[in-house]
Parts: sequence; C-alpha cells; structure tokens
Amino acid sequence: MDLQTLFYPKSIAVIGASTKEGSVGNDVFKNLLFGYRGEVYPINLNAETVLGRRAYASIKAVPSEVDLAVVVVPAKAVPAVLKEAGEKKVKAAIVISAGFKERGGEGAELEEEIKKICLNSDIALVGPNCLGVINPQISMNASFAVSTPKEGKIAFISQSGALCSSVIDYANSLGIGFSKFVSVGNKACLDEADFLLYFADDPQTKVILIYAEQFKNSPKLISAVNRVIRSDNPKPIIVLKAGRTAAGAIASTSHTGALGGDDKIYEGFFSQNGMIRVYSVEEFFNCAVAFANNPPAQGKRIAIVSNAGGPAILATDALIEKGLELAQLSPETINGLKTIFPPASNINNPIDVLGDARSDRYRAAIDFALKDKNVDGLLIILTPQTTTEIEATAQVIIEAKKNSIKPIIVSFMGQSTVESGVKLLKEAGVAQIAFPDEAGRVMASLVKFYQNVSEPEGEKFVFAGLDKVKVVSIMIEAKSRGQTFFPEVEAREIIEAYGLPLLKSRRASSAEEAVAAAKELGGKVAMKIISKDIVHRTDVGGVMLDVKPEEVANRFNEMIATVSANVPQAKLDGVLLMEMAPSWQQLEDGGGLEVVLGVKKDSNLGHAIMFGLGGIYIEVLKDVTFRLAPLTKKDAEVMIKSIRSAKIFERIRGRRALDKKALIDAIGRLSQLVIDFPQIKELDLNPILVLPEGKGIKVLDARILIE
Amino acid sequence: MDLQTLFYPKSIAVIGASTKEGSVGNDVFKNLLFGYRGEVYPINLNAETVLGRRAYASIKAVPSEVDLAVVVVPAKAVPAVLKEAGEKKVKAAIVISAGFKERGGEGAELEEEIKKICLNSDIALVGPNCLGVINPQISMNASFAVSTPKEGKIAFISQSGALCSSVIDYANSLGIGFSKFVSVGNKACLDEADFLLYFADDPQTKVILIYAEQFKNSPKLISAVNRVIRSDNPKPIIVLKAGRTAAGAIASTSHTGALGGDDKIYEGFFSQNGMIRVYSVEEFFNCAVAFANNPPAQGKRIAIVSNAGGPAILATDALIEKGLELAQLSPETINGLKTIFPPASNINNPIDVLGDARSDRYRAAIDFALKDKNVDGLLIILTPQTTTEIEATAQVIIEAKKNSIKPIIVSFMGQSTVESGVKLLKEAGVAQIAFPDEAGRVMASLVKFYQNVSEPEGEKFVFAGLDKVKVVSIMIEAKSRGQTFFPEVEAREIIEAYGLPLLKSRRASSAEEAVAAAKELGGKVAMKIISKDIVHRTDVGGVMLDVKPEEVANRFNEMIATVSANVPQAKLDGVLLMEMAPSWQQLEDGGGLEVVLGVKKDSNLGHAIMFGLGGIYIEVLKDVTFRLAPLTKKDAEVMIKSIRSAKIFERIRGRRALDKKALIDAIGRLSQLVIDFPQIKELDLNPILVLPEGKGIKVLDARILIE
Repeated sequence: MDLQTLFYPKSIAVIGASTKEGSVGNDVFKNLLFGYRGEVYPINLNAETVLGRRAYASIKAVPSEVDLAVVVVPAKAVPAVLKEAGEKKVKAAIVISAGFKERGGEGAELEEEIKKICLNSDIALVGPNCLGVINPQISMNASFAVSTPKEGKIAFISQSGALCSSVIDYANSLGIGFSKFVSVGNKACLDEADFLLYFADDPQTKVILIYAEQFKNSPKLISAVNRVIRSDNPKPIIVLKAGRTAAGAIASTSHTGALGGDDKIYEGFFSQNGMIRVYSVEEFFNCAVAFANNPPAQGKRIAIVSNAGGPAILATDALIEKGLELAQLSPETINGLKTIFPPASNINNPIDVLGDARSDRYRAAIDFALKDKNVDGLLIILTPQTTTEIEATAQVIIEAKKNSIKPIIVSFMGQSTVESGVKLLKEAGVAQIAFPDEAGRVMASLVKFYQNVSEPEGEKFVFAGLDKVKVVSIMIEAKSRGQTFFPEVEAREIIEAYGLPLLKSRRASSAEEAVAAAKELGGKVAMKIISKDIVHRTDVGGVMLDVKPEEVANRFNEMIATVSANVPQAKLDGVLLMEMAPSWQQLEDGGGLEVVLGVKKDSNLGHAIMFGLGGIYIEVLKDVTFRLAPLTKKDAEVMIKSIRSAKIFERIRGRRALDKKALIDAIGRLSQLVIDFPQIKELDLNPILVLPEGKGIKVLDARILIE
Repeated sequence: MDLQTLFYPKSIAVIGASTKEGSVGNDVFKNLLFGYRGEVYPINLNAETVLGRRAYASIKAVPSEVDLAVVVVPAKAVPAVLKEAGEKKVKAAIVISAGFKERGGEGAELEEEIKKICLNSDIALVGPNCLGVINPQISMNASFAVSTPKEGKIAFISQSGALCSSVIDYANSLGIGFSKFVSVGNKACLDEADFLLYFADDPQTKVILIYAEQFKNSPKLISAVNRVIRSDNPKPIIVLKAGRTAAGAIASTSHTGALGGDDKIYEGFFSQNGMIRVYSVEEFFNCAVAFANNPPAQGKRIAIVSNAGGPAILATDALIEKGLELAQLSPETINGLKTIFPPASNINNPIDVLGDARSDRYRAAIDFALKDKNVDGLLIILTPQTTTEIEATAQVIIEAKKNSIKPIIVSFMGQSTVESGVKLLKEAGVAQIAFPDEAGRVMASLVKFYQNVSEPEGEKFVFAGLDKVKVVSIMIEAKSRGQTFFPEVEAREIIEAYGLPLLKSRRASSAEEAVAAAKELGGKVAMKIISKDIVHRTDVGGVMLDVKPEEVANRFNEMIATVSANVPQAKLDGVLLMEMAPSWQQLEDGGGLEVVLGVKKDSNLGHAIMFGLGGIYIEVLKDVTFRLAPLTKKDAEVMIKSIRSAKIFERIRGRRALDKKALIDAIGRLSQLVIDFPQIKELDLNPILVLPEGKGIKVLDARILIE
C-alpha cells in the first residue's frame, strides 16, 4: 500500500466537493484550499465550479493524474466512485462517508465491497466513516476538522473522528504539533499496523499516539509495533483505549460496531508489546510532550529541584508510586550545593532551593544535579513567589537542557503569573507540565519505556516430545461426534500429550475397579464422578476428597447413588480416582499453592493465556493477568511477577520459594497448545498446585471447550 | 478564639512593614493597601512612613484600636511583639515570620513561647511560618501572595505557603473564587479544626479545600468535620494530603517538621470522617468547581449527552470505575427522544446527539434527561464539529441548569475553538471540566459525598461486662516490672477480659501436665512454647500443630529440647496447649477464615485499628484497612467491606457466609480496649479464625506492646 502517496500526494480529487456552506463536502474542499500546494480537483455532477475551482463530473474526467481521492458521497455511491478511482490509477483514497459497518446489515456488505475494490485496484484506503487525514508538513488538511494542527513530531491515529477536532484544539493551545494526523474510521483496509509501519521510518515522527476502542491482534500489528519500539531510534507508542469497563465497552459497541474486549486482556496485550497505556486524554498529551522533547532515560533515579516543599512532596509521591526512585545525591553534589546555599539549607533530594531562590540558585542546583552520576533524570518545579525570576529561570533551564543527555521535565505552577516563562520553555522544546504530580507520573512513563526497550527480546519456548498426533486424533474424533466440550478425563489426555504434569489417576466403573485403582495409586485418594452432563461436580455430590483405601468401595457406591438422585437425567461414566494433592496447609512440608492457568479466545486479540491465584481467591480477588499467545519465556516470567500476590511465590517466613520455573514451562506449553490448536475456545487448568522449588507443579483438574 | 475579627478586622497593624522593595514586610503591606477599607498601620522603628502611611515605632504607639496584627519581624523578636499586641488588646495575629518549629531546637522553644503568649492574651494566632490570610469579600490580602484571588464560594486552608501563590494563579485562570484563604503554617494555635468550625457557619463558604502534609486527630477536629458535613447544608471537605509514599513523607519531614504518617491510616481517617480525598492538584480544583456549582446529588444513576461517541465512552469508563451507574432511560424519555432524532439514531444512554447536533437537539436531549425520574445527574459533552453551535449550546445548558435540581457537569472539549462557550458556562456558574473522563470522576465524588452524608451517623458500641479492673491490674503489675511487651499468655488474659473469644488453652510446665491439659482440651492440640525471649516461635521449633493426645508427652520434650538448642539464652516458661483450630480447608465443614485485627498508635492520628486478611496473605497482599478509635458500628462494617477481598465473607460456591457480626463485635471491643488503655502502642490478634455465620470467631494468638 502506498502510504507515501497518501501523505504526500501531488494532486487530490474531492469526490462530493460541495458548494453548500456547512456541508462536509464543502468543509473538506475548503480545508484543502488552505496551504496545500498540489492540485485540487472538485468532483461534482451539478456545479460548474466549487469555491472558484473548476468542477468535474467524475474523477475520470479530470485531465491530469490524480494521486489521492477524498470521498464524501453517500455510502451507496461509494463503490462506483472507487471503481472509477481505480481505473484512474489513483493510489490512495480517504472515504469520509459514513453508513458502512457501523450501521450493520447492508452497511457491512457495502464495506466488504469497497474493501475488495481497493485491494483489487491497489488503492490505499483510509476509512470509511472517518474524519480524514492531515499532513501538516505539506499543509495538507484532507479532513473536515474544524481547526488545523501545527507541524510537530507527534503522529496521531484515532479511531474516533469526533475526538479529532478537540485533540487538535487542545494541542494547539499546548503548542503541540503533529507530524501526521489520521482518523482511521472503520479500518476496512488500512489499520493501526499499516500506519505504525510507516511511522517507524517517518523522519518527522518521534512519538505515536493511538486512540482506540478496539484492536485486532495480528502478527502484522505485533511486527509493526516491534519495528517502531525496537530499533536504534525507538519511538514510544502511547495508547488511550476507551471501553475499559463493561458499560464503556457497550457504549463503544453502539458507537463503532466494534465489540470492546475484556480490559484485562488488553492490559496484557499492551504490556507484552511495550505499548504505553494512558487512561485519560490529558495524560495522553502530557506523555506526548515529555517524549517528544526528551532524550531516552538511562535509569530511574530522579532528582527534584524545587523552590517549594509541598509540590516537591507531591511529585515525590507520584514518582515513587510509579516505581521510580529519588536519586541519592553524590557527595560532590552535596558539597557543591553547600557552597551556594544559605547555611540553614537542608541539602537533600528533593533539592529545596528555597522560596527566595532567584535564577542563579536554580542554575547551580540544576547544573549540579545534571552532572551527578547518580541522577538519571531531573524534575524542576517552580512556584511563583515574591523574588522568583520566572523568565530568567526558564532561560536557565533552556540552557541546561541544550547540554543535557538526561531527560528534564519542568513544572512551572500557576497560570498567568508564570505564563511568560512557560511560553519560553515550550518554544525551546522543554517539556513543561502544569502539575508537579503529573510531571512525576509522566517521568515514570518515560523511564519505563526506555528500560523496557533496552531489555533483550524474550526468548522463544522450544519443546520436544509434544504428542501433537494424539491431540489431533482426539480433536478429529470429537469433531465427528459434534462434541465441543472436553470434561476432565478427555481434557487430561490433551494436557498430558503436551507434557503438563498431572496428578496420577485411574478410571473405575465399579466399586471393585475403584478398590483396585486406589491400591495402585497408594494412600488416600480423591474421587470424582465422570459425566459429560455434569459441569459442577461438587454441587451434586460428585467429588470426595481424602478417601481412605478401605473406604473406597463404600464411597464409590454412595457417590453413584447421590449423584443419580441429584441429577437423574445425567449419564454417569464411572468415577475418576486420583492421588490426593498435598494441601495448602501442608505447604511447609512440601505441599503446593493453588493457582489457575486458562485460555480465553478473544474475538479481537486471539488466544489470551490467563494466570492467577486459584482456589477461593480467584473469585474474590480476581488476581489474574493475561498475555496473548504466542508467549515468550519473558512474557511468562512477567506474568508471574505481575499479579498482585506475586510475592507469594517467594520465600516467606521460612517457607520455601515455589517452583516458578515449572510454572513458566507450563505457561509455554499452554501457549504452544493453542497455537497448534486454534479451535480451542476456552481452557481451564484449575486448580494447579505449585510445589516448592525443584518439585514442579501438579495439574489437578482440566476442562477444554473448542469451537 | 475570635476568628470573625481575624477575617473581618476593622484595623490592621503590620509589624515589620518595610520600605524595602521586594522584602516580605513590604509586599504584605502593599497587598493590604489594595482594596482593604479598614485602617492599616505600618509598625517600623526606623521609617517615618511606609508606602505613604505614617509609621509607628510599636503597636502600642498606634493611637486607635488595632484588631489584627500581621507580624513579619525575625523569629527572635516575635515573642516581644506579641506581648505588646496582647497589651494592646489585639484580637488576632498572623505570624508570617519563619524560624520556629520547622527549624527545630531553639525554634521549637520560640514557638512554644509565642503559643503561650497568645493563649494568655486570647489572641487568635495564625502561623507562624505562613503566607498569611486573605478575605476576598472585604478585599483584605494580609499575605505576601504574588496575586490576589477573586471572591467566590471556596474556603482554602493550606499547610504549604509556597503552594498558595500557584493555587491563586490557577484559580484565577479557571475563574474560581475564594470565600477565605488561609495559610496555616506551623499551626501553633489555630489549626484546621478551628477554621473548619468557622467555615461551617460562614455563609460565604460552600466548599472547603485543605492541603495538608499532616493532620492531628482530635475530638475537636472530628466534631468540627461533623459540624461541616452533617448539617442541613452539608459542605464538602476536599483534602489533598501530600507525603503518601515513604519517600514523600521523608521529603515532608524536612519541609515542615511534621512526620508524615502511614498513608493507609490517613486513608481510613478521611473515609471514616466523610472527607473527600483527592490525589492531585488538578483534581482538587475540578472537585471544587463541581461542588461549588451544583445542588446535592440524590443518587448515582447518571445520563450522558454527547455529540461524540469516543469521549462518551471515556466518561462512562470513569463513572463506572468509581461506582456510579449509567441511568436506564425511562420509556417516556426514549419515546420522546425518538420524535426528535434522525431515524437511524441509537437512543440509549450515553445519548448520542450525533456529530451534526445543533443546540436544539442538545436542548431536547438535556430536557428529556433531566426530566427522567431514573436520572440523578447529567454529564454533557461537546466536541467542536462543523455544525456545532458552541455558544448557543452553552446557553441551552445555562437555561437547563437554572431549573434543575440535579447536578450537571459539562465538558466542552478543546481550547480556543470552544473558549467562548466555556466562558459563558463559567460566568453562569456551570461546572465545566475540560476532559470528559475527569468530569466522570468528579461526578462520582459529588454523588458519593451526598450519599455518605445522607446516611445516619454510626451507632456507638456499648459493651457490658468488660473486666477493666483485671486489665488495670495487669498493666500496673507490668509497669512495676518495667515490662512493655505482653506475649501470648498475658495478652490472652487482657483480650479475654474484654470479651474477645479465644480458643481454649492450658499451660503446662512438664510432659505430665501437658498430657493432662491435652486430655482436658480433648482431641488433637496445638502446642506453642512460652517464653518472653522468643518473638517468632515458628522459626525456632516452638510451634507444633495437630498433635495427637498420645504423642503429647514426647512432643513436649522434643519441643523443649529443640528450642533450647536453637535459642540457648531464652528463658522457657513452659508450653501452651490449645485446642486445634478448624482449618481453612475444612471451611465448608465449619472451619474458619484467617484474618487479622491489630492496633497501631500513630503519632498524629492516635490509635488506628487494623483489619485485614490473615495468614500468608497479610504479607503478600497487604489487604488491610485502618480506622481510628473510637469506631462506630458502621465504621466496623465499612472496614470489613472495604478490603479488596471483602467478597470472601459472603457465600461463595455453596460455602456458607462467614460471621461478620462476630467480627464487627470484636472490632468494637478492640476499639474500647485502646480507648480505656491508651498506653497500648501495638496489638496483634493474628490469626483470628472467622467461622460461618452464627458460629462466631476464634482468636488464636495475641501480643501487645505498651508504652
């Protein structure tokens, strides 16, 4: 797809350019007449001219070549228009018109149709149902946005057209400029992945912002993201994903026809792929400003220079909460500062330059802090006080930044009083954020991004001896029977074929068989009813634990009787006997911790692997985390670290640390299983006992649902 | 204390008024010459006049009465100045000068001295070490703030002087005015409690903002807070508390000499007392604007009217996350809306008035939403699009608000494009918040505040039959021995005296006694070493669980031998035998859940009662919550509800609900214990088993530390 021509066309035709003031067709054409230096042709059946330009009845009637077609005719007319554009050898098209997939039914069919046309004609299609595309570098505003953004370093990709005008407006007021500005609409052809690939190499783009209501996970997207963030010149991808809550996701559905996924899965997806997630429009901009105006951070030790204590505390709180550290100032710095400050000063980090600090004291403090090898980044806070030199201090900071290889974020607090200083800072490309706590949070995003991209990419899992053939045969057999649910017994076979360690078990269809099985297993056993018709076995008396060998016969008969009485319609296929799992309470003596592994196939993101605390805690704490398959070893490690209760795997009060290595291996095997068998829709390994280090894990129960 | 005269003085003397441009003494005097209509006297030994006003050598030399003294002389001279002020019958004083408690040592002594002087002379003292006091209503700016705030409905109390200038500056730019503005400094005499009491009855004040680095909990403060929020005209108290993280608290210490407390305790304190905590400077203002410009909310069902889908989703996410609901529109509203909207419109909440909405469509949607009996509050979002009527829509909202008894929060998104509408809204007293997600969060604060104050106050615990005398005698005996730590055996006696249910136990000093004790207890027992010298008994082999009666003698000897070998220096006082607690795994059969109750005496807030999940989870999840003694029944109930794992007490998967009633009773008894014995510094009941409903709780272990 030719995105270079989309962003840098030599000529543009607006199909549906209108003479009617206030109509979209008029607005778009008007916007193209301001500043854009290429040719612009209005296509309009009825008008001789549009806004003084000669109009043509069709794109094919235009006498010279057309690079880009902007389409604002009603949905039904769009296929014909695009066909003509194809014949005209147009390279890119922006379909602004609505009335496609977002309307459902016929609209969705229309969208399929235009998608095909563009693929066949090799047209790079943006939209439909979008605001348009803007390239400030060549002053091309091919959109119906109310205002025009300035030129800058930020590329913006938005799934919401309506949000775009506000974004441009805010950005202008903050002095933020854009390299490219794209409203992607329904993403019939071009989606985030295509634009990310383009922006990876776009010399104008330093930061990429994405507003999205839904993402399609695909190898194309992942490789585009990697291309952007893992290069010699990594560019951060900052994502504002709306539809976080269930109600928000429903609102989202009615809005763009995209089903909002489970937010925890998105959380895992962003984290796994090094995308920075923000939660508000404001954070979006603040992050953008900080990244666009700073070099990479080399570490997390931050110094704060402030002329007021309270704001420095607020910034400290924010930094620490996000995992950064206050730098320990080196003795050189402390001694240096002592020579300049009043004798009563408390030389420490945050460095309090005191309320009466003029610009010279700020300069000294800033210079010492930036020189300090223990300092990786600097926050500078200024509150306007009687003797504060606002502009001169801004100049000091601008000078310091010129020579600094460390990130600097500034918070001149206030409005009109500090305005002149803020203006100087912004013009000089210094990241200024109005509130010190927010400045702290943004510094944290900056540090974490560069930390993340500097780490090596995760290693791939490689497994030998997976019995794929066996699983294939189980799946084929199930398919022939129309079976989609595998209860414990069959699920265990699948799991075992992929090398996941299960407790030993035996099937029994009579009391005698049960006694023999128990003898084989040795010691006490767990007994579970086998029936395809029963999902919650505990509720119907289908589970017995800690059964002594001598009681097995009686309990077998008792279970069959109870379950039959409770669920007379269920077909019973016998009883599964298993060795008893070492209990949670016996953990110190070699027992295990209950965790859960699972799979959920998300319609947008694909197979999400879930990991979390098991037992009663899974319902109560919902302490789970997701990552998308395929996972790397690092992904699996990070999963285990990222649940709230992560500490439970470590050595606690003399109890041995748990076998994380075995758990990581199991996560990898599960990832491989769903890659090999994408028909798996849901899978639960619940509970799994994690034993002390070196002793592995034990899967106690499994169930699988396929499509 | 005469706060009325402090805020409305007829005459003011500035002691230390200076002729030197840029000095604090000059700035303060200058500020008082702008607008304030009472008499202002400069006190200056060396000058004839200050800024054109005749100067006096001392306050006593002033020929007429002086209501308020503003003091800006060096710290050492302050006591003498205040003595003279007392003799002059001055009613209030603001000591701006620094060099007191915040400097430690001699400074702290000076502060004690001026405190005494003011108490003796009945002077209402603000400060020392503060920025001053401003009453915009009479244009009195008795501070050295750089700018002057407008008149409005918000009272501001700040512990940071430096923050004040920025706050005024922001507020001015947002069009926010203040009723009173106080920098409290070191709070030698007047503190938050005094000002809260005054603002409770101040007709100018509708909302109270507090910036604090530390709070002193006291019956005075609690009763002042109650007076403010529990009246026919409740006023919200919005608190920005800095020093949340450990590092932030250390920064705070070096700043004002106040030790930042444990943040979770503050969290409990604010929640218990109905104060609204915010976490950033910006949220501070947004909350203030929303409360100052809205009637009380009657419920949590919110409607959203928006001309853009994306922002409506962002707002929905924020609302839901904070516990509000999207209103279910009534059939009347939906039918009404259908008559006005294009046929394709999706009538639902959020109500999407579509991108091309003019003011009339906004009016219809707003009117229907406000009339709907299912709607308790309204969020209106506007993004500037081609046909958007920004000013006319603002007028529609202003009209709607005039007749509405429901809160309305508006988000006109953008900057310069929407500026004219935003200006109209602000002037008309409509709460406008730039970002829709933030607007949603602020709506949640509003709803929650009024929900909270409409609930009846918590009932007091009343207990009969507490054996206070026994505890007194234990305490006296301990004091005589210089003992401050009560290990299990003695702690159990104290706990039992206050009616907390313990597992049955017996002491044994020989294997024979142990066997007898075990017989009395019946069944398996737990055995624990008794020694004042051992804190972590498990680590040294001093705990054995599940000991069968026949093994008791051998295990007793074994334990004595092991512990002696591990801690040869420890004096052993025998072994405690206890009935075995029903285990976690047996919960369905009547076992219990491990929780923890504790007490921590905080230097600022007093006795904090802690409740949380016990066992290994207390270290891993830190899922605990605090409330300050004395607790009401409601406080105890809310505590149990407010841990993250709260759901664990409910019926889960057929397991019975747990005995919350017994737990609430225990919390009450603990609260009573620390009220009766304030020398208790730390107390741990860990673990406590909570049994199924009706079966009570069991305290398994206890330890107490006194001062």
